[in-house]
Amino acid sequence: MALSTFTSFADVDHLDNWVELAKKIKDNPFQFQDWGRNKTLGLIFLNPSLRTRLSTQKAALNLGMQVMVMNMNQDGWAIEMEDGTVMNAGTQEHIKEAAGVISQYCDIIGIRTFPGLKDRGEDYAENIMNKFLAHATVPVVSLESATRHPLQSFADVLTIEETKNKSKPKVVLSWAPHPRALPQAVSNSFVEWMIGARANLVITNPEGWDLSKNFTRDTPVLHNQEEALQGADFVYTKNWSSFENYGAIATGKENWMITKAKLSHTNEAKFMHCLPVRRNVVVADEVLDSPASLVLEQANNRTFAAQTVLLKMLGYEG
Amino acid sequence: MALSTFTSFADVDHLDNWVELAKKIKDNPFQFQDWGRNKTLGLIFLNPSLRTRLSTQKAALNLGMQVMVMNMNQDGWAIEMEDGTVMNAGTQEHIKEAAGVISQYCDIIGIRTFPGLKDRGEDYAENIMNKFLAHATVPVVSLESATRHPLQSFADVLTIEETKNKSKPKVVLSWAPHPRALPQAVSNSFVEWMIGARANLVITNPEGWDLSKNFTRDTPVLHNQEEALQGADFVYTKNWSSFENYGAIATGKENWMITKAKLSHTNEAKFMHCLPVRRNVVVADEVLDSPASLVLEQANNRTFAAQTVLLKMLGYEG
Amino acid sequence: MALSTFTSFADVDHLDNWVELAKKIKDNPFQFQDWGRNKTLGLIFLNPSLRTRLSTQKAALNLGMQVMVMNMNQDGWAIEMEDGTVMNAGTQEHIKEAAGVISQYCDIIGIRTFPGLKDRGEDYAENIMNKFLAHATVPVVSLESATRHPLQSFADVLTIEETKNKSKPKVVLSWAPHPRALPQAVSNSFVEWMIGARANLVITNPEGWDLSKNFTRDTPVLHNQEEALQGADFVYTKNWSSFENYGAIATGKENWMITKAKLSHTNEAKFMHCLPVRRNVVVADEVLDSPASLVLEQANNRTFAAQTVLLKMLGYEG
Repeated sequence: MALSTFTSFADVDHLDNWVELAKKIKDNPFQFQDWGRNKTLGLIFLNPSLRTRLSTQKAALNLGMQVMVMNMNQDGWAIEMEDGTVMNAGTQEHIKEAAGVISQYCDIIGIRTFPGLKDRGEDYAENIMNKFLAHATVPVVSLESATRHPLQSFADVLTIEETKNKSKPKVVLSWAPHPRALPQAVSNSFVEWMIGARANLVITNPEGWDLSKNFTRDTPVLHNQEEALQGADFVYTKNWSSFENYGAIATGKENWMITKAKLSHTNEAKFMHCLPVRRNVVVADEVLDSPASLVLEQANNRTFAAQTVLLKMLGYEG
Repeated sequence: MALSTFTSFADVDHLDNWVELAKKIKDNPFQFQDWGRNKTLGLIFLNPSLRTRLSTQKAALNLGMQVMVMNMNQDGWAIEMEDGTVMNAGTQEHIKEAAGVISQYCDIIGIRTFPGLKDRGEDYAENIMNKFLAHATVPVVSLESATRHPLQSFADVLTIEETKNKSKPKVVLSWAPHPRALPQAVSNSFVEWMIGARANLVITNPEGWDLSKNFTRDTPVLHNQEEALQGADFVYTKNWSSFENYGAIATGKENWMITKAKLSHTNEAKFMHCLPVRRNVVVADEVLDSPASLVLEQANNRTFAAQTVLLKMLGYEG
Repeated sequence: MALSTFTSFADVDHLDNWVELAKKIKDNPFQFQDWGRNKTLGLIFLNPSLRTRLSTQKAALNLGMQVMVMNMNQDGWAIEMEDGTVMNAGTQEHIKEAAGVISQYCDIIGIRTFPGLKDRGEDYAENIMNKFLAHATVPVVSLESATRHPLQSFADVLTIEETKNKSKPKVVLSWAPHPRALPQAVSNSFVEWMIGARANLVITNPEGWDLSKNFTRDTPVLHNQEEALQGADFVYTKNWSSFENYGAIATGKENWMITKAKLSHTNEAKFMHCLPVRRNVVVADEVLDSPASLVLEQANNRTFAAQTVLLKMLGYEG
């Protein structure tokens, strides 16, 4: 049966098979073009995007699909998310109609929506994504939602699988400083997929910046970065704003930036980040510009992760 | 001879044939792909669009065409509409050059432009559309202009034709409340096409909100909504700002909203709206979410209406 | 060997051959579609664009390529250009990552970036273009940079070649008034290509508005427009802000506008401009609307200039 939804790791049946298919696609990205003929992917952006925008388009084109891109807020109408509202103020179109209508024109829909980072309950309820899912009548792929970014995580898993030189490498997710409040989505999702992949994962972040227990479960969370980095094979760095004190920005934590000196505690670890990255805030130039950095290969693998998901949504079961 | 312009009902030679062709296309949307090979549709938006943007793209792709989309005001230059102006202020490019240049790159051009709703004479002269037509050298299709939205009306006719269970159903165009000043374009155009289709049309709106007599001609216009709705088979609801007191918004008319109670006066009428729609202002959730609502099918039919027009512009005469 | 960069005239090996190929493509734009199969062009706009946006898309589609368009500032992230910066302020992504990542998804990248017109050294160092080139790993075509617009110039050369009725016509580049500070890019580039084509070029502009000597070399620069226009076969008009008093706008020079009376000094000169053009500021309606105007053909030739460059980047050597 064709994959109908891709919004979290829970939508993956057998990760190993998915990774194998992604590698097969990467070997020859154009081998499945018959699957996409006369099929249209609609990409709906409620927020900015570079990698997701281009890699998902490219993935669809590689499959022979057509793509239509829509920046909802600048090209279309302000969307109402609440049910039962008397819509006599700013919003112009209800998500029920938006999702239902876009489903008329697309065979698969991708949608990106960021959290507000004001109301934790609302963000973690994934209101926008869930309402879109409820009213769409075609398969929907998350291009990042309030609390997850599964296409990124799938590309990250693929990158680690391609690069690792031992069967069970140590992977450290290391919190980074940042001047603005960022979502927890990439980090939540990375943790979810690493647990799914039965990786040897350790998380390190300052006190007060622990991710939700619903995501981290029994993963070790260390507040001492140096200790966490010991013997790491992969260091995945990412900022997130506080989950506990929801949306709070950490100050005075500049020393959490990843430097060459810090990587000296590791097992010649590879450096990973989802991008965009603030240089010399999140990570020093000396690391990002070194051969240890996998960031461009992560970006490259976004195409093949997306292509795998789209191909499964088109009904491929190989 | 290939259709060269589609901006109003006057461009339709035989409506029955057009409806038949649209149904044929809907049966198999991909059967005419040879017609669009190496042909490019340019979609020029001076205003926001969701349905028109996606359905017209989809229509072109179904025909094997290429599509280029341009949001004129954010992607390009501020356009001068007046002839003879000394362009030493805000505008950067004259519509003469814009239309002439875009014609170099496209085989068919679609353009959307909303009215200002300040100067009735200017809006009803269709200055922007007419200047664009005058300087374009390829076929032009209206994606909604100051006073008409013919692709919407064609889809509406198609929807009624597919749904009706008697040869001449009663169709009521019922004005709706709305917090902002909206164009009369959808309503003018619907009336024009319904008259063209020799439908049994009745219009109902508050006093002071009568549409232009040039559009309504001898169609009954009732200021009593309940009376108008009696025995209706289709209720098409839409707000428009005043034509008489040009651009005025009606206040205190909340009771013109379509509810289940109001539809009880009808012949189990189907509910229609062009979307986007403000829920619980224009129409109650209970109606929009009921099986009586045709709004998604109207949206779906936008593709086949556009595809029919494009196919005729590509020279198909079957 | 495939063309790897197209940012200035220096990237052209044999101009005559390029012009011949462009004419051949114009004769039948679809004859090279096998070259573009499964190849993707990414168009990255840091600034507005109409002609370049549509003609370069059309060129790629004519070649069978796929196209992805990205308006960097509105769709993506604010880009950091400086090396070594601590990115803790407004910028979100470094051009190193942007160029490297986009290279993962595209076979050829086009990029447009305007000068700031504040700091001459910075603009003329072509910082943004050069940094993009340094970090891109696929061929890059300039869609206009701080100091050059080579696709425009190539189309201009093609237009003159098609139109001239003597082997070495007199071409006059005539400065024009304008209310805003414009780049020197189109003019610099036109001069560069005209010198490359060994044309009989004369430049005329007010004192204080001479272009850089690095571009004009030994081309005659007259401050008397009437004298310069004597016997001209082509009058190419364009405003540019001052190079000497960098970015300065000229005031009180309204009489530099091209009028019919001024063209009476010429050899029935053809009128050229790259567009967009401010009517009755840069050029009078009577000239732009006359048969002497080549502006639409220049715009048309943008497609074939771009198609020639892209075809060479795809490896065609015929």
